[in-house]
Amino acid sequence: MPLSEHADLNTALDFTTAAIGRTMDRLLPRSDDPEARLYEAMRYSVLGGGKRLRAFFVLAGSTLFGIATPAALRVAAAVEFVHAYSLIHDDLPAMDDDDFRRGQPSCHKRFDEATAILAGDALHALAFEVLAHEDTHGDPAVRVQLVAGLAQAIGPHGMVAGQMVDMEAEGKTLSLGEITRLQRLKTGALISFACGAGAVLAKASEPARHALVAYAHDVGLAFQIADDLLDVEGRREETGKTPGKDAAAGKATFVSLLGLERARDQASLLAEQAGRHLDMFGHKAELLKQAARYVVERRA
Amino acid sequence: MPLSEHADLNTALDFTTAAIGRTMDRLLPRSDDPEARLYEAMRYSVLGGGKRLRAFFVLAGSTLFGIATPAALRVAAAVEFVHAYSLIHDDLPAMDDDDFRRGQPSCHKRFDEATAILAGDALHALAFEVLAHEDTHGDPAVRVQLVAGLAQAIGPHGMVAGQMVDMEAEGKTLSLGEITRLQRLKTGALISFACGAGAVLAKASEPARHALVAYAHDVGLAFQIADDLLDVEGRREETGKTPGKDAAAGKATFVSLLGLERARDQASLLAEQAGRHLDMFGHKAELLKQAARYVVERRA
Repeated sequence: MPLSEHADLNTALDFTTAAIGRTMDRLLPRSDDPEARLYEAMRYSVLGGGKRLRAFFVLAGSTLFGIATPAALRVAAAVEFVHAYSLIHDDLPAMDDDDFRRGQPSCHKRFDEATAILAGDALHALAFEVLAHEDTHGDPAVRVQLVAGLAQAIGPHGMVAGQMVDMEAEGKTLSLGEITRLQRLKTGALISFACGAGAVLAKASEPARHALVAYAHDVGLAFQIADDLLDVEGRREETGKTPGKDAAAGKATFVSLLGLERARDQASLLAEQAGRHLDMFGHKAELLKQAARYVVERRA
Repeated sequence: MPLSEHADLNTALDFTTAAIGRTMDRLLPRSDDPEARLYEAMRYSVLGGGKRLRAFFVLAGSTLFGIATPAALRVAAAVEFVHAYSLIHDDLPAMDDDDFRRGQPSCHKRFDEATAILAGDALHALAFEVLAHEDTHGDPAVRVQLVAGLAQAIGPHGMVAGQMVDMEAEGKTLSLGEITRLQRLKTGALISFACGAGAVLAKASEPARHALVAYAHDVGLAFQIADDLLDVEGRREETGKTPGKDAAAGKATFVSLLGLERARDQASLLAEQAGRHLDMFGHKAELLKQAARYVVERRA
């Protein structure tokens, strides 16, 4: 069953969670070989839940262009593999040193640090293997464009740079401009790739691609502001993370810079603005518009 | 100046070292942005020397098919980026915990653990970015085949699996079959990709590709046996590594399983056998044949 453009958001999110879980389960290695522990750690980190918002963005973006669900699911899986790898490495003692992830022991606590480093590395490579495989798209030009897009989004000018800036920021007071740049790199670039992947799969027109980039830009920022709000307001039972962690680490956040109320307003404004970028797609964009509102209203 | 098929090995290795250094220097990011420390760590790890044997295999394999040097150098750079990333992560305290690499402080000693983890991750992504870029080859089908080949070689069924098996092997006694499988995964798969990349760039025939795979298989094994011999016989000044480290860690090696003399004989035999796989290429393969001998005779 494909993701229908007429589905309401909750149905679409449930569909995404179930379908991406099955897809990733099929794509993840399993064996009794001596490296079985590596596969266990990969599967533990990837299949242990999560909002699957990035997968949803790939699927919902793909419905705009009538892309078949299996292809979109492979790209969504690649994005979730990368997201999982980044969380595994972020949680390491030398990085954010977080013992919990989604209410469960983080990968290095459940296994060990070496296994966690390697599980992250393996998921990183697997994402590119999945994109490059002909099952993802019949046209190699499309596949290589996906590879290039993902590599740029997560490499030294994208996600990893954002993580580096984040590490360097501890104890410093970033300006609003600096923290916006950090967010764009650390989480925004991968979200942009996810939102635009359907347009790549469909070889869509430049205006369509630009609309999705603009949507992703605003949604990504709204998402991060909402995350900062949850870090202050959220409870562990709901977020599965240690609350108040950013404040305790002395990190500047959108909330510490703007205050609670202005941060909330800003997130709502961005969500609304994000939706308007998609007006060219008419009713087909309803899911993505709902998602933009959901991103700022979610409780976890 | 291209790498000539008529060059002797030392000239070819010197050419490789100089040309790959320039290529990687151009491809590596440099900036005054807040993530400058990430770029410093990447450049430190990549440009700090090394035998560049993997780059050489890409270039020498490419000369068999008359591939233009700039394209081959981009693929060689991608391979060296991956190799550098794997060394950075291998050296981490949670992994092999090695303070030295090529006689210099390893990345996490020169910088810090978080930076080292991220520098490895960034080089990993950059390798795929370089392969996917149109400067590497005009045909997207070739580029995506390179991406798929590299991802398979270094992912959960390749290099990372080998590293996991290696970690799990500490304190155990592996059989010759197990240690051969470990080597094939940990170092062999990337060497095979390097040796075969020229054939991909040239869209070479199946027999040509198979010949290079067979060559790489034997050379990779010979390379690892030679490495184990150097670990026992080498001195830090020459190898830049801590000698006797494998023995101290209780790791089974080809030397501990075969003994010095049989290990030496086996390496020589493999080098000779490797060369014979390339007879179909005639005198063009002379460089690769010399390289197979060099791999087992090198002192560092």
